[in-house]
Amino acid sequence: MDLLNETIAAIQPQDRATRELARQRLDRLTMPHWALGRLLDLALDLAGMTGSLQPAVERRLIVTMAGDHGVAAEGVSAFPQAVTGQMVANIVSGGAGINALARVAGARVQVVDMGAACNLSALTDSGQILCKAIAPGTANIALGPAMSREQAIRSLEAGIEVARDFAAEIDLFGTGEMGIANTTPSSAIVAVLAGATAEQATGNGTGIDNGRRAHKVAVIERALKLNLPDPQDGLDVLAKVGGFEIGGLAGLILGAAALRKPVVIDGFISTAAALIAQSLAPASTDYMIAAHHSIEQGHRLALARLGKKPLLDLDFRLGEGTGAALAMTLVEGAKRILTEMATFEEAAVSHGHGGA
Amino acid sequence: MDLLNETIAAIQPQDRATRELARQRLDRLTMPHWALGRLLDLALDLAGMTGSLQPAVERRLIVTMAGDHGVAAEGVSAFPQAVTGQMVANIVSGGAGINALARVAGARVQVVDMGAACNLSALTDSGQILCKAIAPGTANIALGPAMSREQAIRSLEAGIEVARDFAAEIDLFGTGEMGIANTTPSSAIVAVLAGATAEQATGNGTGIDNGRRAHKVAVIERALKLNLPDPQDGLDVLAKVGGFEIGGLAGLILGAAALRKPVVIDGFISTAAALIAQSLAPASTDYMIAAHHSIEQGHRLALARLGKKPLLDLDFRLGEGTGAALAMTLVEGAKRILTEMATFEEAAVSHGHGGA
Repeated sequence: MDLLNETIAAIQPQDRATRELARQRLDRLTMPHWALGRLLDLALDLAGMTGSLQPAVERRLIVTMAGDHGVAAEGVSAFPQAVTGQMVANIVSGGAGINALARVAGARVQVVDMGAACNLSALTDSGQILCKAIAPGTANIALGPAMSREQAIRSLEAGIEVARDFAAEIDLFGTGEMGIANTTPSSAIVAVLAGATAEQATGNGTGIDNGRRAHKVAVIERALKLNLPDPQDGLDVLAKVGGFEIGGLAGLILGAAALRKPVVIDGFISTAAALIAQSLAPASTDYMIAAHHSIEQGHRLALARLGKKPLLDLDFRLGEGTGAALAMTLVEGAKRILTEMATFEEAAVSHGHGGA
Repeated sequence: MDLLNETIAAIQPQDRATRELARQRLDRLTMPHWALGRLLDLALDLAGMTGSLQPAVERRLIVTMAGDHGVAAEGVSAFPQAVTGQMVANIVSGGAGINALARVAGARVQVVDMGAACNLSALTDSGQILCKAIAPGTANIALGPAMSREQAIRSLEAGIEVARDFAAEIDLFGTGEMGIANTTPSSAIVAVLAGATAEQATGNGTGIDNGRRAHKVAVIERALKLNLPDPQDGLDVLAKVGGFEIGGLAGLILGAAALRKPVVIDGFISTAAALIAQSLAPASTDYMIAAHHSIEQGHRLALARLGKKPLLDLDFRLGEGTGAALAMTLVEGAKRILTEMATFEEAAVSHGHGGA
């Protein structure tokens, strides 16, 4: 608990003075006023997050956290639970979607076992994945809490440790996850923290039909009624209806924020983790960059609660960090605009006279 | 005219057989069905365009075409005409927005002088830009046609030549432009070819206020009434109310399509050029990738006429090819997904049972 409390206490808002200096520079660059729109907003954020007019974003890491969920036993997913471990192996082999898109972004991918049901010790022992496993999957939230409060704290602190351990070699973090059935706890979290119904917060996950979705909504309603997570206490929400990889990602976000490093939030499950982080440390949102609009129902609700507008909208619903990886190229663009463009004076270009 | 006619005749629709093979492969990759949404649609397009399941997109070029416009004399822009040449020099020096964002995409930038008012011979003679200049700026469309029909053909053929000259060393083209006042001819083109009013097709360009915008609308209305461009004849539209860089970009698009190479269409002015290409060769749209939604009013109308949904929506209104450059990273992503991801069988991952 000390690490968690210390991390939360260390999170400061963005540096306003550096933001203002960045704005002054952007206003003088050789383009019509704010003509690169949201990329310039992002450049301000990078300056504010890092406290630097040369914000470092070059060394990039997607942290893909894996975990299993007892609620899978309720038949809420289109895929069997064994797929969590199979897909971890696929990522390690370089054949998953996140591998292909991380290459576009020049990002490394690090899988962390937060609590998969299968045995991943071969991959852990060989150093191909990190082991921060809390337990082999959460308990079934339809029957009781997902985990103890103590386990929730450990999952958050594991994520903080990952951020700290990579701090010396990574400038820009991205979140990702792999965990069969994990849209179910995510929808439960979003319902509680965004003040929505289970119906509003629940989508079709990896591709269940509407009949199975209705069942999933009923399971989430049961879990919320049974566990009564406290919307004022993110730790309680995580423990009652969350997941180990969700706690790990929330911790990663808190850790990155405490280190003043930007963290790109992937899709629906990552955004649920971001809501936990926001609940524990509201200023942590200052370090979050929302990657994309997932087509998963409930994502818009979650993003609205977070106060973030995503950079991309490409109908993704894969997770793993795929949207975060692509969005990292836009983060690189924002940095390059801030640091590599000439000003009107430097380039001897005439100013406009009717501009905004 | 021979080169233009020959190029138009060579443009074939996308290869449907290769698209189908690509779809079959994408359906077997380790993810829920179509879980990377529009990136997978783009992968199908790349396969159909190139006729290959390994579509080449690695060698990238942004072609930024420069030209001036007689209609600038009507006071339709926030910037003086001298800025066209000043910004060409800025791009050559590497200090413009397009330089920063082309670096993100690993793309080269090639400026082509299609008809700037200032003397760019120093940059041409040193080989830093290509000279395809038709004349030092178009005539004022408020007083008569922008150019002769013969000049319009020459501008199109110049663009085709650029595509051909780079064909051996470039896989993926992107369009860009620089030309003070060039949203005015673009709005005129969009009004004619998308069947809209000048009011609907006209925006605030580089940042004029609403009073000046009303004047710009009136100038475009006068130009359309005076010149009576034929909406059935893209060549007539280009000659009556177009621009040299717009003709050059339309030619570049036609040339790329004839070579079966994808071409990323930047913002409003590039989309106006794409409408000219579509008018001359409807199948050329099969090779176009719309980069982004500009905030310039009229762009949505133009995109709807083209039948394209852009990849990005970041409130850009800069041009130069900036949106096309960023979108190239998504094109790379689509290619990598198609060629680098493992299938369920290859990765020994269990299939879903309830998926679409």
